[in-house]
Amino acid sequence: MRISAEQAAGELSGKNNILILSHASPDGDTLGCAFSLWNALHALGKRARVLCPDPLPRQFSFLYEGYTEEAFREEYIVAVDVAALQLLGQYRETYAERIDLCIDHHPSNGLYAVKTCLVPEAAACCEILAGIIPLMGAQITPLIASCLYTGVSTDTGCFKFSNTTANTHRTAARLIECGADFRPINERLFDTKSRARVQIEREALSSMRFYAEDRIALIAISQAMAAMAEESDLDGISSLPRMIEGVEIGITLREKPDGTVKASVRTTSTADASNLCARFGGGGHARAAGCTLNADLETAAKMLVGAAEELL
Amino acid sequence: MRISAEQAAGELSGKNNILILSHASPDGDTLGCAFSLWNALHALGKRARVLCPDPLPRQFSFLYEGYTEEAFREEYIVAVDVAALQLLGQYRETYAERIDLCIDHHPSNGLYAVKTCLVPEAAACCEILAGIIPLMGAQITPLIASCLYTGVSTDTGCFKFSNTTANTHRTAARLIECGADFRPINERLFDTKSRARVQIEREALSSMRFYAEDRIALIAISQAMAAMAEESDLDGISSLPRMIEGVEIGITLREKPDGTVKASVRTTSTADASNLCARFGGGGHARAAGCTLNADLETAAKMLVGAAEELL
Repeated sequence: MRISAEQAAGELSGKNNILILSHASPDGDTLGCAFSLWNALHALGKRARVLCPDPLPRQFSFLYEGYTEEAFREEYIVAVDVAALQLLGQYRETYAERIDLCIDHHPSNGLYAVKTCLVPEAAACCEILAGIIPLMGAQITPLIASCLYTGVSTDTGCFKFSNTTANTHRTAARLIECGADFRPINERLFDTKSRARVQIEREALSSMRFYAEDRIALIAISQAMAAMAEESDLDGISSLPRMIEGVEIGITLREKPDGTVKASVRTTSTADASNLCARFGGGGHARAAGCTLNADLETAAKMLVGAAEELL
Repeated sequence: MRISAEQAAGELSGKNNILILSHASPDGDTLGCAFSLWNALHALGKRARVLCPDPLPRQFSFLYEGYTEEAFREEYIVAVDVAALQLLGQYRETYAERIDLCIDHHPSNGLYAVKTCLVPEAAACCEILAGIIPLMGAQITPLIASCLYTGVSTDTGCFKFSNTTANTHRTAARLIECGADFRPINERLFDTKSRARVQIEREALSSMRFYAEDRIALIAISQAMAAMAEESDLDGISSLPRMIEGVEIGITLREKPDGTVKASVRTTSTADASNLCARFGGGGHARAAGCTLNADLETAAKMLVGAAEELL
């Protein structure tokens, strides 16, 4: 059953001993939701606990400052920013049939919970929570504001992505008024890189090749290069080639242990990335798509560059 | 004389044949102000012209789409985002004594104009214009909204810098509702790099050295490296060392043609950059400061790293 933010607030106000579930590979939005809600429930004198299927990234440690675990038997289970049950990872089997409330913004949400507060036009799930928490009668403290801001900023790339709306900015305005410590949060989220990340960026930039009068740029990441870094260090590498001025099609190839090559294609408005990737059995969106090729790096590069040249 | 936004709107509504002055080395804020104001005046049936002491960067070409120059003798002169007369560059002598209105947000504004609408709490001058334009009776068209958004986003680093306020976000919300095309604007401003910039970043990262258990990072840019790029390609390079996870003091040295070395120091909250630079006759803020050393790159590096180690 779909319910409104007011009804979701009513549900939460009426319950105690609440388990909050966040999704696997946790990001700033699911954790921002979980810990803002935990703090709000705690302030209302309730017992609550946050459960995440994967370890919490150190980057988000400021979200769980002050978080403490109490023993209790859960009476009400709420999932935040969890679009589908498989995102519960190791907890899927335990909780799949028992989720009372889901608060989410993914249009693809499977409506697996008893009640679902789904607001697909929200850029971040934290944007929804920013409305629900005051409706529960809880104050948005500076810590809660920082948690919620983290989710909003994470999911919009700091207000850059096209999912950002007027309401996203109005939410940020309210959170700043409530004391969200946005400057160090954004510094952590967007202006901090691991040394491994810097090294891999440097290697990727050094290996970058240009084609079609510099309208196509390609980087190839070998297994040896990828081994220098953790998976999280490789996030966003595929947006590097398209960042170069004049580049219309940016291609990132990554050699996989199974001998295949994963290609990520990013384009400006002039070329359709999903069209390009569809030729190789892949897909995606007009500006970001991917495919997998059964070839070595050099062959994969030739195939994709050839197809990209035809597209221009 | 200081005047309010309402009074500034009244001034502009009552005049015709208006010259709009922007500052030298134009950025998104001064140009966003100038072209939003030009479009608003034009829509109100007035004649206006934008004058900038330096060539307009190609990056901002979308701001002056549709801009046309008409011949007329100026009857009213307004400066936007111009904190001091020397920022008028080649036009300083011609206009210094004749500026009727200045709209600005720099606290240091010299009040050189007959009337000044100064709002120092505004993160961007475009934030002020976003209030003035509707008060003039002009509509915020999608193009005007894009101009104003550009200024707000430029001066706040896309809402990251500490000058961002709740009002900044509310302004962005209104501009998005009026049709500001924010996604491609932010892509141009923040996610596009010239090839020269990429090359210099790569060199800078390759040459980066670490000290004090990686709490200090240093990059040294020789004249040969700097010669690969234009001055604008070097913007922001000094923030690179401090971006590395765990680095508390980031130092960027740049060899100058006169044989001196310019040092830029960026710190996290733990160390005072202005304190460090003051030892070498420089200054600045707690987190960003600079100084000039009469030494070669190697000697300058030793001096600054030594002082930085003492500071930790």
